[in-house]
Amino acid sequence: MPGSSIGQRLVLTSFGESHGKVIGTVLEGCPAGLAIEEKEIQKMLDLRKPGQNVISTQRKEGDVVEIVSGVFRGYTTGAPITMLIWNSDQKSKDYENLKTKLRPGHSDYPAMVKYNHYNDYRGGGRFSGRLTATHVMGGAIARKLLKVALGIETNSFTSQIGKIRMEKEFNEKMISSIYKNDVRCPENKTAKIMRDNILIAKKNGDSLGGIIESVTTNVPVGLGEPIFSSLESDLSKAIFSIPSVKGVEFGSGFRGSEMHGSENNDLYTIKKGKIVTKTNNSGGILGGISNGMPITMRIAFKPASSIAQKQSTVDIKTKKEAILQVKGRHDPCVVPRAPPVVDSLVALTIADHALIAGAIKPVL
Amino acid sequence: MPGSSIGQRLVLTSFGESHGKVIGTVLEGCPAGLAIEEKEIQKMLDLRKPGQNVISTQRKEGDVVEIVSGVFRGYTTGAPITMLIWNSDQKSKDYENLKTKLRPGHSDYPAMVKYNHYNDYRGGGRFSGRLTATHVMGGAIARKLLKVALGIETNSFTSQIGKIRMEKEFNEKMISSIYKNDVRCPENKTAKIMRDNILIAKKNGDSLGGIIESVTTNVPVGLGEPIFSSLESDLSKAIFSIPSVKGVEFGSGFRGSEMHGSENNDLYTIKKGKIVTKTNNSGGILGGISNGMPITMRIAFKPASSIAQKQSTVDIKTKKEAILQVKGRHDPCVVPRAPPVVDSLVALTIADHALIAGAIKPVL
Amino acid sequence: MPGSSIGQRLVLTSFGESHGKVIGTVLEGCPAGLAIEEKEIQKMLDLRKPGQNVISTQRKEGDVVEIVSGVFRGYTTGAPITMLIWNSDQKSKDYENLKTKLRPGHSDYPAMVKYNHYNDYRGGGRFSGRLTATHVMGGAIARKLLKVALGIETNSFTSQIGKIRMEKEFNEKMISSIYKNDVRCPENKTAKIMRDNILIAKKNGDSLGGIIESVTTNVPVGLGEPIFSSLESDLSKAIFSIPSVKGVEFGSGFRGSEMHGSENNDLYTIKKGKIVTKTNNSGGILGGISNGMPITMRIAFKPASSIAQKQSTVDIKTKKEAILQVKGRHDPCVVPRAPPVVDSLVALTIADHALIAGAIKPVL
Amino acid sequence: MPGSSIGQRLVLTSFGESHGKVIGTVLEGCPAGLAIEEKEIQKMLDLRKPGQNVISTQRKEGDVVEIVSGVFRGYTTGAPITMLIWNSDQKSKDYENLKTKLRPGHSDYPAMVKYNHYNDYRGGGRFSGRLTATHVMGGAIARKLLKVALGIETNSFTSQIGKIRMEKEFNEKMISSIYKNDVRCPENKTAKIMRDNILIAKKNGDSLGGIIESVTTNVPVGLGEPIFSSLESDLSKAIFSIPSVKGVEFGSGFRGSEMHGSENNDLYTIKKGKIVTKTNNSGGILGGISNGMPITMRIAFKPASSIAQKQSTVDIKTKKEAILQVKGRHDPCVVPRAPPVVDSLVALTIADHALIAGAIKPVL
Repeated sequence: MPGSSIGQRLVLTSFGESHGKVIGTVLEGCPAGLAIEEKEIQKMLDLRKPGQNVISTQRKEGDVVEIVSGVFRGYTTGAPITMLIWNSDQKSKDYENLKTKLRPGHSDYPAMVKYNHYNDYRGGGRFSGRLTATHVMGGAIARKLLKVALGIETNSFTSQIGKIRMEKEFNEKMISSIYKNDVRCPENKTAKIMRDNILIAKKNGDSLGGIIESVTTNVPVGLGEPIFSSLESDLSKAIFSIPSVKGVEFGSGFRGSEMHGSENNDLYTIKKGKIVTKTNNSGGILGGISNGMPITMRIAFKPASSIAQKQSTVDIKTKKEAILQVKGRHDPCVVPRAPPVVDSLVALTIADHALIAGAIKPVL
Repeated sequence: MPGSSIGQRLVLTSFGESHGKVIGTVLEGCPAGLAIEEKEIQKMLDLRKPGQNVISTQRKEGDVVEIVSGVFRGYTTGAPITMLIWNSDQKSKDYENLKTKLRPGHSDYPAMVKYNHYNDYRGGGRFSGRLTATHVMGGAIARKLLKVALGIETNSFTSQIGKIRMEKEFNEKMISSIYKNDVRCPENKTAKIMRDNILIAKKNGDSLGGIIESVTTNVPVGLGEPIFSSLESDLSKAIFSIPSVKGVEFGSGFRGSEMHGSENNDLYTIKKGKIVTKTNNSGGILGGISNGMPITMRIAFKPASSIAQKQSTVDIKTKKEAILQVKGRHDPCVVPRAPPVVDSLVALTIADHALIAGAIKPVL
Repeated sequence: MPGSSIGQRLVLTSFGESHGKVIGTVLEGCPAGLAIEEKEIQKMLDLRKPGQNVISTQRKEGDVVEIVSGVFRGYTTGAPITMLIWNSDQKSKDYENLKTKLRPGHSDYPAMVKYNHYNDYRGGGRFSGRLTATHVMGGAIARKLLKVALGIETNSFTSQIGKIRMEKEFNEKMISSIYKNDVRCPENKTAKIMRDNILIAKKNGDSLGGIIESVTTNVPVGLGEPIFSSLESDLSKAIFSIPSVKGVEFGSGFRGSEMHGSENNDLYTIKKGKIVTKTNNSGGILGGISNGMPITMRIAFKPASSIAQKQSTVDIKTKKEAILQVKGRHDPCVVPRAPPVVDSLVALTIADHALIAGAIKPVL
Repeated sequence: MPGSSIGQRLVLTSFGESHGKVIGTVLEGCPAGLAIEEKEIQKMLDLRKPGQNVISTQRKEGDVVEIVSGVFRGYTTGAPITMLIWNSDQKSKDYENLKTKLRPGHSDYPAMVKYNHYNDYRGGGRFSGRLTATHVMGGAIARKLLKVALGIETNSFTSQIGKIRMEKEFNEKMISSIYKNDVRCPENKTAKIMRDNILIAKKNGDSLGGIIESVTTNVPVGLGEPIFSSLESDLSKAIFSIPSVKGVEFGSGFRGSEMHGSENNDLYTIKKGKIVTKTNNSGGILGGISNGMPITMRIAFKPASSIAQKQSTVDIKTKKEAILQVKGRHDPCVVPRAPPVVDSLVALTIADHALIAGAIKPVL
């Protein structure tokens, strides 16, 4: 299977281009009998959509989801669920001068070579971050499935923008605060500073990156298939599909590699009759398999590649150096729009593994 | 497909257990007409094998590869290549008391639950690092294929052990120095300190983690399939199959998320008539597709979970806390044995993508 | 991957239901650079569409294809090609009384049990022959790809309706006659008798089955992958996805099993400098691999299950026997509408194998 | 995935060549907790093995199975089960003169072209019927799994050799008679005539084909995934992997296509409180899904291609016509050795679907 699909039992296929007619999702393998409404999906899409505030791109997309197959009288049928979003606010003219001048940090150059110039380059085409909306459509369903079938909750949030980090460690009580600000950082005070930094970067025609953390609770013990479908393998595969992601770590991650085994090992104990670990440096995954502790990931986003500053580049037609100034409407920082995307990909992956392991049945 | 296979066109299937009769590999999709000898595979296996020196486990395994299918008169035939290693030096008795006492940091507990106690727990069974030898058998072939067909070279090395890091940035001239010391660090002076630190940890009944860096050169522009088979997605999926890996980053990775777009963007220029970038913060991958620059990864290994110190844990039979002291022969640090494994998984993934993209043909 | 997708390198995903909003196709893996227009696809769809004449169902569907992704300025881009047909002429009320009375020969009963009554039963839902239009959308592209890239032509036709068979063996000169009559039988005289028989069956509230033959020429030697992706394996898998198909044979097929080896073996000879066989009892496939001779299949279609006669059945609600009279508009014989569907599935399978074998490259 | 593997949740990978060191099977996805012994597998292998009697090839292979992974203390562990058979009685010299003279009916010519002469041609190499022993190793386990988990039984038998057919329709009482004669035909009297015909063909340096019928009982309602993983699609895909198979039909099959709908439709009724059909023209499959009735298939085998008579052919070296006389030890009719192979592929496919549909759980 080429690259537009992900999953073994719960398979999401994404289609469409940034400036094409439509973007869409086919989700196959969702158990029959799950109650689902468009408005539940819309709610999650709205948290990702552009043009919400001053720190995101001013492209105005309603991003209205339409379910066109797989749901009958309010319930999933077991057939593939197809969802569409019609594109409306493309400004393709902004991209005409980019046809030859390679945008640094973007896929323009490798895509041109790979597809011998046949690719739809407008707005990044198939490589655009806009396509992550297709993951959110499927993810909203996967997230509900996990909640209904197993009580699993997955939440992610902005923990760092540029060099500004959250002061405290995340805890479950913070969940309700994540969407209380534009930055999706549960520490309101820190969020303010992050927002200011984004606006400064924007004013300077520059951009910022940051870090998203993801926490998934109530995962049953035993999800993940050794060796190559470990939870870490499949979660990282899903997360690295997001443009701009350049790093993924689980539990203590890179920090853990500086520790001794005696520090990093999570010791077992009994709590309320259940086997748990005292710490969670493993991020809830041992040997690639869930151990019942929360699954925790940290995800590094590079600063957005589209910046308003002039950059030196190459004109592929003349094969000479040239100066490029990217126009169009861009996010000075994509991180605040990423939590619904991360939640979606995490939910899709864990739901897939719950189906593989038999923890969720093919019909609810 | 469950978890024992990886790849789309070049598919590696791994089988066997740490203390079973055999471990082995079926590699399907390798083009017909590649000259390959057992000794080429053996050479790479020898760099991974245990018992080589004081800083690795004292389990003595010859790890002798035997090709039993798919090669005829010295050339690959296009049929699946099967390679076996017969286990010889298992000491399964060491694991009998572990049947009920959960080893912290290991897969024992989730594996027991997942397989309802039917799993072969001896030496970690299917979850053992020993299984990475099966990746090396396939990887040695993939690495040769890449070299012969496209001139691609992939090399990895130890860049950090615990808190000890290499002083300089890696450059291609260092490649010949990687295997000049036990630690597989191309800076000999630093390697010595790393080695000392490992021996101290060993003496304390403790363990250390570290970081492996991987560099792949001569990759043609255009490998990787949007969206979910991006090179980052598939490389990370492969790498996270290695037990102990808890983090993966490409190019500037986590560090890049603290930079501005104007710093992190790699500007294009022309060098010897070729389009290249002045820096390589992208790690050779843009939009999930290779851009012709070296592919660079950093991989975080946690400290080995098997330590000689007493640890508090839970006895799953009594469901009570218990004290555990792991016996057996273990690596105080697995990082020095990891470079051939990383090279193998990188080579397998890139060769798979070269086949998908048509850069390598099904018959040489 | 569940059941809505087929193919390894050229992957068709089918979605939608008979009486839902839309039916559609995502075709991934088609090489970039193929010129394609909606009208080329429409032409093939029109040959399948209902309501064309007195021997097919009177459901009137325009079956108008709309390409919504993957084609840019008249050429495929390498991205997934999505095509939609909006349903218009459903009469779902006809199916309300069928909710409980099981229609003999249809999927109603197993589907109900499988999906615990959540399935969309209207018009057969996901199981309807209507879904074969999604194969034709993808098939039209695959057929053009084969023609352009390799000169391969695939054609199928009606060779038998009920007990009425063609008098002569098919030969290539007959191709132009296939669509000269409603029955799609290249022997005009026989077609007339077939048509009469269908009309008699219709008048009696009954239905007829028949046989489609498929001939594919110009296939290069060497397509097909041993053992489980033999051409026969993958062609039959594709063809058996058509509702009503209950038998598939290649070359001399069932007849060949009554022959001696000395009769059935196709002897090699040289013709115009090319190695060919004197006969083609193998149907162009040896050891699962194309041998350069025309690929020939015969496909058995059962008589349509929807008949106007009263039938005794079971009411699943009362769990008692009941009398059923199926209303609605049905084909008295589906065979005449099947050739474009067979051509599509054959073209998709052979194009997939041409990509796997490297005979067609990922970019034209 | 290339062609050496089959299945989605229960995946069989076959490796080895006819005259190589070993042939083997990796079976992944078999639930943990199934009791299995080598002797159970051996029993089924023995029914397939060559050299059993005068009507089969005189190649003497012990075909001794050795389980080398995935079974621990008598039970499956959930890890891939690897089974090996070491080849012993190859006479590769017989094949040296065949290197250039193409054997009619065999894969020699397309294989040579496909692999550019790198393939192992000895004894048909990868294309040999010998490889079906790898399916039997996996099939023996699948068959036991079906029996233990769901009470499913699958049996096949010879119903026709050349033009000699069984007189009566098969019924379940005949099962115990299948292996009472060399031909595997439950009608002893007919078996005798079949045997005589095979011996006559052998004496004439000729060969015969025939038909195998397969009956699977106790299949639960609801197995099979629409559209492309219908039971018919996946069963035919599996069965057409057997060399010599050229036709597959379900239920009334080709015969049914001559009937009217009113004759061919299976009417529902209630029997012992269960919904059943009065006839079984559907072969137990409606809309690609099992309906609870026995699954019935008829499978056409061509006459064996290796015959002792002189045949005219082409010498690929001289590119001229040549006379070929195949030496070596061959089956005058492969049909009598096929029932265990058919049973295996049917069992593997149905077990795979039982896992997909959740009828069998990942841990018993």
